[in-house]
Amino acid sequence: MPDSNFAERSEEQVSGAKVIAQALKTQDVEYIFGIVGIPVTEIAIAAQQLGIKYIGMRNEQAACYAASAIGYLTSRPLLVIGGSSERNQETMGAFQEFPQVEACRLYTKFSARPSSIEAIPFVIEKAVRSSIYGRPGACYVDIPADFVNLQVNVNSIKALQFADVIVLFGARLNWILHFGLPPRYQPDVKFIQVDICAEELGNNVKPAVTLLGNIHAVTKQLLEELDKTPWQYPPESKWWKTLREKMKSNEAASKELASKKSLPMNYYTVFYHVQEQLPRDCFVVSEGANTMDIGRTVLQNYLPRHRLDAGTFGTMGVGLGFAIAAAVVAKDRSPGQWIICVEGDSAFGFSGMEVETICRYNLPIILLVVNNNGIYQGFDTDTWKEMLKFQDATAVVPPMCLLPNSHYEQVMTAFGGKGYFVQTPEELQKSLRQSLADTTKPSLINIMIEPQATRKAQDFHWLTRSNM
Amino acid sequence: MPDSNFAERSEEQVSGAKVIAQALKTQDVEYIFGIVGIPVTEIAIAAQQLGIKYIGMRNEQAACYAASAIGYLTSRPLLVIGGSSERNQETMGAFQEFPQVEACRLYTKFSARPSSIEAIPFVIEKAVRSSIYGRPGACYVDIPADFVNLQVNVNSIKALQFADVIVLFGARLNWILHFGLPPRYQPDVKFIQVDICAEELGNNVKPAVTLLGNIHAVTKQLLEELDKTPWQYPPESKWWKTLREKMKSNEAASKELASKKSLPMNYYTVFYHVQEQLPRDCFVVSEGANTMDIGRTVLQNYLPRHRLDAGTFGTMGVGLGFAIAAAVVAKDRSPGQWIICVEGDSAFGFSGMEVETICRYNLPIILLVVNNNGIYQGFDTDTWKEMLKFQDATAVVPPMCLLPNSHYEQVMTAFGGKGYFVQTPEELQKSLRQSLADTTKPSLINIMIEPQATRKAQDFHWLTRSNM
Amino acid sequence: MPDSNFAERSEEQVSGAKVIAQALKTQDVEYIFGIVGIPVTEIAIAAQQLGIKYIGMRNEQAACYAASAIGYLTSRPLLVIGGSSERNQETMGAFQEFPQVEACRLYTKFSARPSSIEAIPFVIEKAVRSSIYGRPGACYVDIPADFVNLQVNVNSIKALQFADVIVLFGARLNWILHFGLPPRYQPDVKFIQVDICAEELGNNVKPAVTLLGNIHAVTKQLLEELDKTPWQYPPESKWWKTLREKMKSNEAASKELASKKSLPMNYYTVFYHVQEQLPRDCFVVSEGANTMDIGRTVLQNYLPRHRLDAGTFGTMGVGLGFAIAAAVVAKDRSPGQWIICVEGDSAFGFSGMEVETICRYNLPIILLVVNNNGIYQGFDTDTWKEMLKFQDATAVVPPMCLLPNSHYEQVMTAFGGKGYFVQTPEELQKSLRQSLADTTKPSLINIMIEPQATRKAQDFHWLTRSNM
Amino acid sequence: MPDSNFAERSEEQVSGAKVIAQALKTQDVEYIFGIVGIPVTEIAIAAQQLGIKYIGMRNEQAACYAASAIGYLTSRPLLVIGGSSERNQETMGAFQEFPQVEACRLYTKFSARPSSIEAIPFVIEKAVRSSIYGRPGACYVDIPADFVNLQVNVNSIKALQFADVIVLFGARLNWILHFGLPPRYQPDVKFIQVDICAEELGNNVKPAVTLLGNIHAVTKQLLEELDKTPWQYPPESKWWKTLREKMKSNEAASKELASKKSLPMNYYTVFYHVQEQLPRDCFVVSEGANTMDIGRTVLQNYLPRHRLDAGTFGTMGVGLGFAIAAAVVAKDRSPGQWIICVEGDSAFGFSGMEVETICRYNLPIILLVVNNNGIYQGFDTDTWKEMLKFQDATAVVPPMCLLPNSHYEQVMTAFGGKGYFVQTPEELQKSLRQSLADTTKPSLINIMIEPQATRKAQDFHWLTRSNM
Repeated sequence: MPDSNFAERSEEQVSGAKVIAQALKTQDVEYIFGIVGIPVTEIAIAAQQLGIKYIGMRNEQAACYAASAIGYLTSRPLLVIGGSSERNQETMGAFQEFPQVEACRLYTKFSARPSSIEAIPFVIEKAVRSSIYGRPGACYVDIPADFVNLQVNVNSIKALQFADVIVLFGARLNWILHFGLPPRYQPDVKFIQVDICAEELGNNVKPAVTLLGNIHAVTKQLLEELDKTPWQYPPESKWWKTLREKMKSNEAASKELASKKSLPMNYYTVFYHVQEQLPRDCFVVSEGANTMDIGRTVLQNYLPRHRLDAGTFGTMGVGLGFAIAAAVVAKDRSPGQWIICVEGDSAFGFSGMEVETICRYNLPIILLVVNNNGIYQGFDTDTWKEMLKFQDATAVVPPMCLLPNSHYEQVMTAFGGKGYFVQTPEELQKSLRQSLADTTKPSLINIMIEPQATRKAQDFHWLTRSNM
Repeated sequence: MPDSNFAERSEEQVSGAKVIAQALKTQDVEYIFGIVGIPVTEIAIAAQQLGIKYIGMRNEQAACYAASAIGYLTSRPLLVIGGSSERNQETMGAFQEFPQVEACRLYTKFSARPSSIEAIPFVIEKAVRSSIYGRPGACYVDIPADFVNLQVNVNSIKALQFADVIVLFGARLNWILHFGLPPRYQPDVKFIQVDICAEELGNNVKPAVTLLGNIHAVTKQLLEELDKTPWQYPPESKWWKTLREKMKSNEAASKELASKKSLPMNYYTVFYHVQEQLPRDCFVVSEGANTMDIGRTVLQNYLPRHRLDAGTFGTMGVGLGFAIAAAVVAKDRSPGQWIICVEGDSAFGFSGMEVETICRYNLPIILLVVNNNGIYQGFDTDTWKEMLKFQDATAVVPPMCLLPNSHYEQVMTAFGGKGYFVQTPEELQKSLRQSLADTTKPSLINIMIEPQATRKAQDFHWLTRSNM
Repeated sequence: MPDSNFAERSEEQVSGAKVIAQALKTQDVEYIFGIVGIPVTEIAIAAQQLGIKYIGMRNEQAACYAASAIGYLTSRPLLVIGGSSERNQETMGAFQEFPQVEACRLYTKFSARPSSIEAIPFVIEKAVRSSIYGRPGACYVDIPADFVNLQVNVNSIKALQFADVIVLFGARLNWILHFGLPPRYQPDVKFIQVDICAEELGNNVKPAVTLLGNIHAVTKQLLEELDKTPWQYPPESKWWKTLREKMKSNEAASKELASKKSLPMNYYTVFYHVQEQLPRDCFVVSEGANTMDIGRTVLQNYLPRHRLDAGTFGTMGVGLGFAIAAAVVAKDRSPGQWIICVEGDSAFGFSGMEVETICRYNLPIILLVVNNNGIYQGFDTDTWKEMLKFQDATAVVPPMCLLPNSHYEQVMTAFGGKGYFVQTPEELQKSLRQSLADTTKPSLINIMIEPQATRKAQDFHWLTRSNM
Repeated sequence: MPDSNFAERSEEQVSGAKVIAQALKTQDVEYIFGIVGIPVTEIAIAAQQLGIKYIGMRNEQAACYAASAIGYLTSRPLLVIGGSSERNQETMGAFQEFPQVEACRLYTKFSARPSSIEAIPFVIEKAVRSSIYGRPGACYVDIPADFVNLQVNVNSIKALQFADVIVLFGARLNWILHFGLPPRYQPDVKFIQVDICAEELGNNVKPAVTLLGNIHAVTKQLLEELDKTPWQYPPESKWWKTLREKMKSNEAASKELASKKSLPMNYYTVFYHVQEQLPRDCFVVSEGANTMDIGRTVLQNYLPRHRLDAGTFGTMGVGLGFAIAAAVVAKDRSPGQWIICVEGDSAFGFSGMEVETICRYNLPIILLVVNNNGIYQGFDTDTWKEMLKFQDATAVVPPMCLLPNSHYEQVMTAFGGKGYFVQTPEELQKSLRQSLADTTKPSLINIMIEPQATRKAQDFHWLTRSNM
C-alpha cells in the first residue's frame, strides 16, 4: 500500500502516472529501462522525480535485455510495464490494440492489468513479489492509456468531416479513421464498405451499403457501372469548396514553413528540398513521429505501391527493413529505382545496425536521418529545470532525449557507404545530388534540424500518439 | 504437392531442409529474410539452390519487418518459419524449448507444426493459402530441429563424466547439462538436488537426495554440518587425477593457440592478451557463438556476479543491454569498475545501435568486437563454389556471412566514443591500454581475426548449436 | 445503440443487468438458455421482462448444446455470456476468478469483456455481428459481477474477527477468507503463513512470519518446539469468551430451528435427524447452496479426509462424482463405510445420471436430495407477480425455479436402487434407518422441505454467492 | 521407466495403449474414471489388465470431478489423459481436431503431448510428479489416436466415389468427407467449392472452381444461369446406374434386417416401426454411435431444418439440448409439431437429467432410448473371459458396458412424464401411438434391443470412430 506521504498527496488527485511511479518506488525498484512516448513518458518522469534511475534505450528488445541483467546483478527479476490502448476504445481497433496480458501469459509468472488506478499499487506489489518468490521469473503489468492521461480536447476538422458519403475500400474504421464517429464525421454520414472479410462489415458504424468481395474485382464492377451512367460531384458544392480552401491553406502554411531561411532547418524546409530532387519513380519509406506524419503529406510518390510507412500500428523500427525489402524487389522488377528512406533520429535507433545489411547487399538506398538532435517534440524544459532543483543532475537525463550531435552518417561509412552531415539547405541539396548521382553505393544523410521544430498543430489528439 | 523432379529426388532420401525449401519454391516464395544458425542454415542454402533469394539480416525483428514489406510490395503476406527444439527432447528442457506454435496463435491467421517431414509441403501450402485468402495475414510454420538434421555423433567427455555424486545448487538438468543422462554421466551417478522450486526436483533424473529451499539457506546449513564432521575428497582418487590431467591438457592446448604469432590472430591469442590486461574487479560480458564459448573458459572474473552472458537460452543480442545494466549498477555501487563486453561481430549486429545509449549516458564500457570478417564457423567453401556454377553469383551471398572489412569502431566514434581498428597483438595491447586509461569515454575495439578461426573441438554436439 | 425508450430510462440509473438485457433484445436475441445464480439471475429476469424467452437448464453443458441448436434452427449462432468475478478483486483470489476471455479465445470467433457498462451494447452488437458474418461461429462476452450488482453491506462478525494472530496452514487468503482484510479481521492482526508455494507467501496481506515447506513437516517441527516450551491461550481471555458465546448462540439458534415440528421441514430439522443416525465412520459429501453451507456446520465427520464438498471454487455438479470416488476408495481401504451424499435438488440436476454409475458398480452410497421443491432461496414473489401482469404467463417460468413435486427417488429405482419420498421427520428417520441397514444396494431419499426455508442470516454477503 | 517385465514384453511390439497403461501403473495410478470409445477403450482395458481400477462414468465432467476427489482422498491430484486426432491428419480437419495441449494450458500445471510412444513413460512420470510436487495441481497428457491404433484397412466405396464433379456448398472436406482424397474419390475428380470463408477455399484439395459468397445468393445465381441453359445428367450413365444399384441393395439389406421377427429387436426393426409412425412435420434429433449412424439413413425428415444430430464433431450429450431447443422454437413457429429424439442408451447418460427441464417446460418431446442393454458394439467377450482368469471379477466391469436392465423410462415418470418399457415390435408400436396421441405430456420409450445388434458393415473405418 502507498505510504502516508503518498496518501496525503492522493487527495490532490494524483495522476495514474504518479501512482505507478510511487508503487514502483515503494517496491524498491531502482532502475527503469525504456522506450517512452506519449503517454508513457509521464511515468518515466514521475519515476525520476522519485529518485528512480531511468535509462532510455533504442529498442524495446535491448531495454528488456538490460533490465533482465539488472535482475541478475541485484536479484530483482524483470518487471515489464506495458502501455496499452484506452479501455473505452477496446474492440474498436484502438491504436496498437492487442490482448497484451494474454500474450504475455506464456512468458511470465504473473501477467495482469490493474482494474483501476487504485488497484495499481496492489498489482505491482503482487507482480514484484511473484517475480522474486519461489523460482524467480519475469512478470508483466499492463497499464491502459486512460490510467495515465486524463483530458483530451477535440475541436477541429480535416477533408472527411463534411463528407455525405464515404466509400471504404478495405480500410478499417479504426483509430486512424477516428472510428468513423462524430465529431470527426457528420452524424448522418453514409458509409459504403467494400471488404473481403465479412466480419469487418459494420464495425463501429452501421454502413449504408456493404459489398463483400475482392477490392479489385468490386472496383472494376463499380467502374463499369459508373461508365454506363457517368456522374461527377458538383464542383461548386460546399464540400468541394471547403476542401479546396483547406488544401490551399494547408499548402500555404507548409510553403511558409518550407521557405524559412533561419537555421537550423525545420521539417518543412527539409522535406521541400528533398521533394525537389526526389526521382518520380523512387520508393518512399518513412518512419518516426513527425518525420512520418509530415512526410506523408509533403513527400509524394508517383507510382503505386511505392510508399511504405509504419502505418496503422505505428510500429517503430520498421523503416530499414521496409527499405531493404523495397530495394530487393526493385532490383528485380524495376532496376534503377532508388529507395529514399526518411527516418527520425529516434526511429533510426531501432534498427540502425541494418545499415550493414544494406552495405553487404549494396542496395540502392538513400537514408535521410532527420535529426532534431535527440529532442522529443513537446519536451517541456521548464518542468525539467524545476526537477533539477531536487535531484542530482546526473540521474535525470530526460527519458525522451538522445545524445546531441550524433554522427549517424558514420554508421554508414563504417560499412563502406557514403555519409553526409548537413546543416544548411545548400548542404542538403548537394549531398542529395551526390547520393543520387552515385549508383554504386548507398548513402546516409544526417540532417540537423531545429530541436524544437514543430509541425502544424494536429487537429485530432490521437493522431499525435505514437511509440516514438 | 512437390513436383515430379522433386518426387524423383525424394527417393534419394532428401533432407527435411530440402523438402522445406522445395515446398516454399512450389508456393512461389521468392524472398527469404532471416537470421540463420545451425540447423536452419541448411534450409536457407537449399532455398538458394532452388533460386529463392535469401537476405541475411542482423536482428529477427528487422527480418520480419522486411519480409512484411515484401508482402505489401508483392501481395504475399508474411510467412514466418521458425526452428524449434528436437521433438524427443521436449519437456526435458531442450535448447530454446518453448511452445512456439501456441505462442504465435494470437499473432497469426494460422500457426502449425507439420506432424512429419512428409506433411511439410501440405502445411506450407495451407499456410501460404491462409495468408493470402480472405483478409490477408501472417502465418507461422514450426520446424523441429530433427526435421532438418539427421545424424549426430556423441563420443567424448568433460569433468562431470566420472563423477559419483553431483550436487546441483539450483541448476537445471537441461540441455546445457546434457539432461543428466548417459553417456555424459555415469549410469549410476547420484544427484543431490537443491532447489526452491519443488516441481524441478526429479526432472529428467531420479535424484538420490532432494532439498527444497533457498540455496543460500540450505548451503549455510550444509556447511555448518560439514564443519562439525569435516571431510575431503581423496586427492589421489582416479576422479581428481583425470580431472587434473584434463585441465592440464586443456590449458596446454589453449596456451599453444594463444601463443601463435601468425596473422590474422585466432580467438585464443586475442583472449590471452585481453585477459592479461583485464582489471581484476571488472565485469565481463560476452556473447556470440565462439566468442562466448571460448570467452567463458579463458576470460576470468574474480568478483562474484561480475560475469554475464547469454546463458542457457543462448539469446543473441543481449550483450549490449547486459553491459549497460552492469555499468549502471557499477556506477552506483562500485564506481571505477570497468565493464568489458566481448562481442562476436555477428552478435554485435543485433543491438549495435545501443552504442548511442552507452555514449549518451557516458558509461564505463569497453566493447571488444571479435571480428572474423563476417565468416560463420564451419562455412564450407567447396559447397559454395559448387553452387555458384548453377546460380547467378549476385543472388547467392552466403546466408551466414556478413560484410567483410566492416569498421564497427566507427559506430562508436559516430557518437563521440573512441574507436580502434586492430589487426595485431601489439595493436590490441595498445588500444586496450588506452581504453582502460581514459575513464572519460567508452571505447570500441574492432579486432580482426582469422576468418576460419576455430576453437578446440567441442566434445558434445549440442553445445555447438546456437542462433549465431 | 439502445433505443430511445431505453435511453430515457438510463437517466434513472439502470443496472448493468438491464443494459445487458436491452442490448440482447436490440440484437434480436429471442432465447436464452442458462443456469443462473447470484448475480446472473438479474440478467435473466431483465431479459424476460423484455420478452426474451428464458429456459433454465440443469447443466451448463446442456445449456450450451441447446443454445447452439437454436443457432442451427434460426441462423443465430451461439453467444455465450459468462459472469466473472468483480474487477476490484482480480488477482486477489476472487470467487471463481479465472481469465475467462482468454480461455474462450481458442473456441470463439470473438471473445471480449466490455470495458464499462456503457460499452456493453457496443460489445454485444459486435459479438452478435461477428457470430453471424462470414463463416458463422460462437462468440463470448464476459460480464464482471460488479457490472450487475451495485451496493453491498458488510456489517457483521464470525470467529476470526478478534484474532490477534492467525496461522494459515496452506490456506489461501482468497474470497473464502475475505482476502484477510478488514472489517473481517482486526487491522493489526498478525498472519503466520505456512505454504509449500513460495509465491503464495504475502498474497493480499503482509504476513508477520512465513514458513516455506511441506505442511506436515513444518507442523511436526512446530509441535516439537511447542512440546519443549508448552503454552496455552488463556481460557479467560476476551477472545475465548466471545468465541464460546458465539458458538453457544449459534448452537441454540440451530437447535431451535431443528426442533421445529411444523411441516414441511426446514434445513435444520432435516440435518438434525440425519446427524443423529450418521455412522461415525461415514464419508460426508455435500453440495448445493444452502445444503452445503448448512451441512458444513451441522453434519459432522469424525474421521480425517472423510468430508468432501464443492469447496473454494463452489463448482456445482461435483457431488455425485465425489461420492463415487469416496465409495471406490472406501471399498478398498475401509470396507463397510457408508458415503452419505447430501445434495440440493438443483445441484443434483448437474450430474444426476451418475446414479446409473452408482448402481452399475453397486456402490455404498446414500443420496439425500434436500428438495425445496425447486425454489431458489431469495426468490421475490412480488417482483414476479408484477411481471406477470405484462407478460404471457407461459413465457415466464422463473429462471431459478425447477419442476415442483419432482420424484428424484425414481431416478434411483430406475436403475435398481432403493428410493424414498419423505415429507416428515418420521419418514426421514425410517428411510434413513432402512437405507443404512441394507448394505446390498444404494438408496436415494428425496426429502421435501419448506420451499422458502432459509438459514440463519449470513453475516458476510459474498459467502452467499454461488452458481446455484 | 518401465520395469523389466515390461521391457521384455516391449520386444513383442507392444501397443501404445499398453505403454500408457504401464506408465500409469509404474506411477502408482490406482483409479481411472473415464468415458471411453474407440480408440481409448484399449487403454482402459490394458490398465485393468495391470490391476488399475477403471470406473466408467456417464459424462466427462462427472468423471473429472470423481478423479479430482480421488486426489483429495489419496493425495494424488488429477491427471487428465485425452485422446486426440491422428497426427498425420492435423490441420486437415481431423475428427475432433483441436489444439488440446494449448487449450489445457490455463487449467493445468503441466500440459504436454509425448513426441513418440517411447516418450510416453517419461512424460507421464513428469506429469505425475508435477501434479504432486510443490503446490499440487492437475496435469494434462495428450495421446494422439495413432499412438494407440496401428493398422487400418480401407477397401470399399459409397455414392461419391465415381463422381466426376462434386459441388461443395459450404461443406468442409474434413474427415466426414474423407478429406476429399483417394481412394474415397477418383484421383481426377473436380471440386467446385462455394463458401463464404475465403480461407476454406482449397483446403485439402485444389478445387477446379471456387466461388466466394453467401451460399443462398450463389445458389440463386447458379440456378438462374441453369434456367437459361438447362442440362441434366444422362440417366443412363454408369454413375447413375451404380448409384441406383447401390441404393437398391442398401434398401434391400435394410429391409431384410427390419423385417426380422426374432427378439430382442435389432436397430433396423426399431427404426422401421418408428419411421412408420413418424409425423411428416416432426423434428428428428438423434445421437449415439449406431443410433445416429443408422438413424441418419433410415429416419427421414420431410421439412428443411427439421433434423439435428451430433454432426461433424460427434459430440455426445447434445441430444436432449437439441431437442429442447427444437421444441422451444417449434412451440413458437410451428405449434403442434413433435420432436422425436432418438438416443443411444449410452448417449442418454450424458444429459439425461435434462428430462426434468423437458417436464418443467412441458415440451412436446418423445424420447426414444434405443437400449442395447449397455453393451458397446464390438465388445469381444472372449478377451474378457481370458482376463477374468487373472483378475478379481469385481474389479473388471467392462469399461464400455452400462448397467443391464436399466429402466430409463422411470427418469421420465419421476418428473411426471409418461414412460414405456418395450421389448417387442407390438409394444413399440403401441407406446409410440399413445405418446403421439397425448399432446399434454412428454414421453420416454425405453426400447430394449439385441445387445450384439450390429449394423451393416461400415465401408470406411474412420466413420466408426466416435466418443461413444
